[in-house]
Amino acid sequence: MTGNDLGALYAARERFTSLLGAGAVLADGVIFDEFRDPFEGPEAQSHRAALVIQPETVDQVQAALAVANELKVHLWTSSMGRNYGYGGSAPVKNGAIVLNLRRMNRILEINAQQGYALIEPGVSFHQLYQALRDEKIPLMMSVPDLGWGSIIGNALEHGYGYNILGDHSSALCGLETVLADGTLLRTGQGAIPNSPLWSCHRRGFGPSLDDLFKQSNFGVVTKAGLWLMPQPEVKAVGTILCQQEHDIVPLIEAMRPLLQEGILQGIPMIVGTPVGDDVANIGQGRFTVANLRTVLRPGRWNVRFGFYGRADMVSQRQSILQKAIHAVLPNAEIELRTYAGDAGPDEVEPRDYISAGIPNQVLLDRLRSVFGETFGHMDVSPVIPFTGEAALRLDQAMREIAGRHGVLGPVGMLCNPRSMVAACMLMFDASDPDQVKAARNAARDLYAQARDWGCAPYRSHVALVDEVAETFSFNDDALGRMYSKIKNAIDPVGILSPGNHGIWPDRSI
Amino acid sequence: MTGNDLGALYAARERFTSLLGAGAVLADGVIFDEFRDPFEGPEAQSHRAALVIQPETVDQVQAALAVANELKVHLWTSSMGRNYGYGGSAPVKNGAIVLNLRRMNRILEINAQQGYALIEPGVSFHQLYQALRDEKIPLMMSVPDLGWGSIIGNALEHGYGYNILGDHSSALCGLETVLADGTLLRTGQGAIPNSPLWSCHRRGFGPSLDDLFKQSNFGVVTKAGLWLMPQPEVKAVGTILCQQEHDIVPLIEAMRPLLQEGILQGIPMIVGTPVGDDVANIGQGRFTVANLRTVLRPGRWNVRFGFYGRADMVSQRQSILQKAIHAVLPNAEIELRTYAGDAGPDEVEPRDYISAGIPNQVLLDRLRSVFGETFGHMDVSPVIPFTGEAALRLDQAMREIAGRHGVLGPVGMLCNPRSMVAACMLMFDASDPDQVKAARNAARDLYAQARDWGCAPYRSHVALVDEVAETFSFNDDALGRMYSKIKNAIDPVGILSPGNHGIWPDRSI
Repeated sequence: MTGNDLGALYAARERFTSLLGAGAVLADGVIFDEFRDPFEGPEAQSHRAALVIQPETVDQVQAALAVANELKVHLWTSSMGRNYGYGGSAPVKNGAIVLNLRRMNRILEINAQQGYALIEPGVSFHQLYQALRDEKIPLMMSVPDLGWGSIIGNALEHGYGYNILGDHSSALCGLETVLADGTLLRTGQGAIPNSPLWSCHRRGFGPSLDDLFKQSNFGVVTKAGLWLMPQPEVKAVGTILCQQEHDIVPLIEAMRPLLQEGILQGIPMIVGTPVGDDVANIGQGRFTVANLRTVLRPGRWNVRFGFYGRADMVSQRQSILQKAIHAVLPNAEIELRTYAGDAGPDEVEPRDYISAGIPNQVLLDRLRSVFGETFGHMDVSPVIPFTGEAALRLDQAMREIAGRHGVLGPVGMLCNPRSMVAACMLMFDASDPDQVKAARNAARDLYAQARDWGCAPYRSHVALVDEVAETFSFNDDALGRMYSKIKNAIDPVGILSPGNHGIWPDRSI
Repeated sequence: MTGNDLGALYAARERFTSLLGAGAVLADGVIFDEFRDPFEGPEAQSHRAALVIQPETVDQVQAALAVANELKVHLWTSSMGRNYGYGGSAPVKNGAIVLNLRRMNRILEINAQQGYALIEPGVSFHQLYQALRDEKIPLMMSVPDLGWGSIIGNALEHGYGYNILGDHSSALCGLETVLADGTLLRTGQGAIPNSPLWSCHRRGFGPSLDDLFKQSNFGVVTKAGLWLMPQPEVKAVGTILCQQEHDIVPLIEAMRPLLQEGILQGIPMIVGTPVGDDVANIGQGRFTVANLRTVLRPGRWNVRFGFYGRADMVSQRQSILQKAIHAVLPNAEIELRTYAGDAGPDEVEPRDYISAGIPNQVLLDRLRSVFGETFGHMDVSPVIPFTGEAALRLDQAMREIAGRHGVLGPVGMLCNPRSMVAACMLMFDASDPDQVKAARNAARDLYAQARDWGCAPYRSHVALVDEVAETFSFNDDALGRMYSKIKNAIDPVGILSPGNHGIWPDRSI
C-alpha cells in the first residue's frame, strides 16, 4: 500500500476502528504528529505514516495483523517512538500504518529475589523507575540519555545505557512476539508452558531466537524479561577530564585493560568537546561551538563513568583507576561523587542522574534551552575499534564533515571492553530545511568515511537504512540474502515493517 | 539416505575420497570408531554414522556440501566429537555421514590487546592453552571439565566453563558458517568485507545471527571469535563444604545475591555427594556410592569457585564471601588457595586446574581409575530455578530415579546469577547393555520429572532430543514450527544434521 492508495487506507481505518475503538486509531491531529519524524526534512514525505493504531493487548495485536494480512497493508512497529535522532516512529516505507505499542504499558512482574522485571513494550524507563521507587524494590536500572523511551524498544534497537547491564539488548531475557501471520511465539524457557525461568535463563533447547527479533521485522515483541542489578551499597559517579587533543590516545590505552579486567564497570562514555577560540564561532545562528560548549563538560575529552558496589571495593576501584590514568596523564582531573545506592533524584546532582541510574530528560532540556525549541538532531553512530587512533580519526573526520556541511557534530564514544560505539549528534535548526538536508548529507558522508575503515553504524535513521545495510556485503551480500530468506519464510509479502534495517522480502505487496 | 542404502553410500564414499583424499574418509577402523557413541547401548544402532569425512579447509566443506546436495545424503556436523556424555559424534539420523572438523584446527589470530582469539572448530582447549603459554600471551581461558573437546563445538552446544566468560556460548563473537547450499556467511561485523571488529563487537546492522547457529543445524561453523580475559594478578580458587542436607537452602540464598552483585565471579559449581553409611553400598559392581565418594569432595555439598583479579580486591571478595556464608552456615568450611595469575600446571594443584583455567583430563582419569576402563556416563542437565528448594528437589528426584534404575547419579549445579544448570552424571558400566539402557531410562524419567516443574535440559543425548524438544510446546509448538520454517527456507530437504535438537524440515530426503 502507498499513501496514495486511498481506498485501502479508508478500508483499513474503518476496520481498525471497529477492532480497536476510535481512540486507538489516529489519522491526524497533535498526537498523530508525534509519530512523524520530529526533525523531518525535504525527504520526509518518503517516510510518512498513513495511520497510527494503538492496540492495548496481545489479542488486539494479533487481530490487527489478521486485518493487515487480509487488506494487504504494511504495519510498521514502534514502541514509544522516542528515538528522535533516528527518525522516531517514521516508517521506511511511505504510507505504512504505524503499529504503536504505547498503550501496552503494563509491568507484569518485578522479581527482587531473582533480579528481573517482565514488561510490555509501552513501559518507559521513567515508568519502571517509578514503580521500583514506589514499591521500594532494591534493584538498579541502567538508563539511556533520555528516560521517556520504551525500555523494550531501546533494547530491541541494540540501544545502550551506561551502568552495569548497560548493553540493553543483552539485558533482555526471553521474548513474547507475534509473527506476521499472527502466531504467538515465546522464546527460550518461555516455550515451556509452565516455565518458572522465562525471564531468568537466556536459552531453551535449540537455537536462541531472542536476537532474531532485535533490529528486525520478524515479529512484534509484546513482552520481554529485563534483568536488573541489585541496588549497590554505593554508587560513585563522575568524570575524567583531559585538556589536550592527543590525550585521547593514552586515555584509551589506560581505560581498555581496566574495562576488560572489570575494574571499570558499566559503559563509560567519552565525549569530545571542540576547544580553542578559533573554533568558538563556527556554526550558524544559535548553533555555534561556543553555545555547544555550555552544554558539554569542560575538558577536551570527558569520560563519564561510575562505580557500583560495596563501599570498600568502590574505593579500591577508584584508586586503581586514578593510578592508571595519572601514570599516563598526570594532568587529568578525576572527579567522583559518591551517593548511597538508593539515592534518588532529590539526592543526586542532575549531571549524575544517568550514571546513577535515574531516568531523566536533562540533556534534551539543556539542549533546547541553549539552541531553542526547534533544536533538531540526527544521531550517527559508527562502531569503531577501541584504540586511541580510531577515536582520533573519528573526531577528525566528524569535525571536517560537520564543518563542511555547516552543522555541529560533537563526538561521543561508548566504551565496551573490545569496541567503541560512537554516539555522535549532528545538531541543527529543524525549522530550516537546508540544515535538515545538510545533517543528512553529513551523516551519509560520515558513513562513507567509516566504510573505508571497515566500520558501520550500529543503528541508523530510517532514511539511511538501505545504504547502511549495503556495507554488510561480504560474499555477494550473503547476510542480506539470509535475512531475506527468513523474511520470505515467515512474512513473504512484507506485512511487518518492510525495509526495517534494510530487510525486505523478495516480493512485497 | 539410510544405512541400508548401500548404493548411495558407495557413491558418496568414492566422491568424498576423490574430493578430500583417502585419509580424510573413514568407513571403519579404530579412528572411525571414535565417532560412535562411546557408551552406546541397545538403541545405538539407530544413531550410527555410515562414513566419517574430515575436510581441512572451508573450500573442502563447501565442496562436500555440494556433493551431499547432489547425492542427497545427510551430513552430521561434529567438531572434535568429545561430548561423550551426550553421544559423542553419533548422528540423530542413522546412516548420516559425519562431517568432522578435527582437521580444521588453526588458531588464526590471538590478539592480546583486544582480548580475543580467532579459531577454527578443530581447536581444542588444550591446544589454545598451549599456544597462549608458548607465546607468553597474558590472557586467561575458561575451560570445561575436560580439555580435549573443541572450544567452538562446546560453545555452539551452549557449554559452560567456570571462570569469567564461563558462559562459553556468550564468549563467541562473530561466526563464519557454511550454509546447507554451500553459501559462506559471516555474521556481525564480519559481514563488512574489511572489518577490524569481527571478533570484537557482537552485532552488525540488523538482527545478530550468531545464536541461530548454536544448538542448530542451520550451518557448519568454520571460524569463530572467542573472547578471552586478561590474565589476573592472582587467581584464588577453592571450595565451600557443608555437611547437612538442608544446608543447600541457606547456602544458595547466600550465594545468589553475591553472584548477582558480582562478588562471586565466573560460574561456581555445587556438587552434592551422597553421605551416610546407609547408602555406601548402593550401586552395583564397582559403581557404588562408596567408590563415588573417593572421586568427589568430602562435603554433603561442595561449591567450587574462584576469584580473579588484583590481589587486594580478591581479598575483599574473599572476606565478603566468608562473612555471608558464615552468617547463615557457621560450620561451613571455606578453603582457598591463591596462585599467581600466570601459574601453570606445574604450580597449581590438579584439583584446582579447572578453576585456574588450565585444561585437563583429571576428572575422567580419576573416574576411570575408580570405575575401570568401561566407565560410562550419560549427562543429564535440567535448567532449574536458582533457589535452595529447587536444588533440594532436584537432588531428591535424582537420588530416587538413579536408585530405582540401579545407576549412580551425583548432582552438580552450575550457578548463573538467575538460574542453575544441572550437570548431573549418570554413571554406569558401559560394557553392560542393561546398565546402558537403565541410564537412558533414568535420564528419561528425570526429564519427565523436570517437565512437571516446567524445566528442561539445556542439552541432551542424541537419542533423547526429540522428547526434550517436545517440552517446548507453548502455543501448539510455535517455537518448533518457527525452527522448521527457517530450516525449510535454507535446507529444505535436511542435508545438514537433520534432527539436531529436534529440528527437522517439513520434508526430508
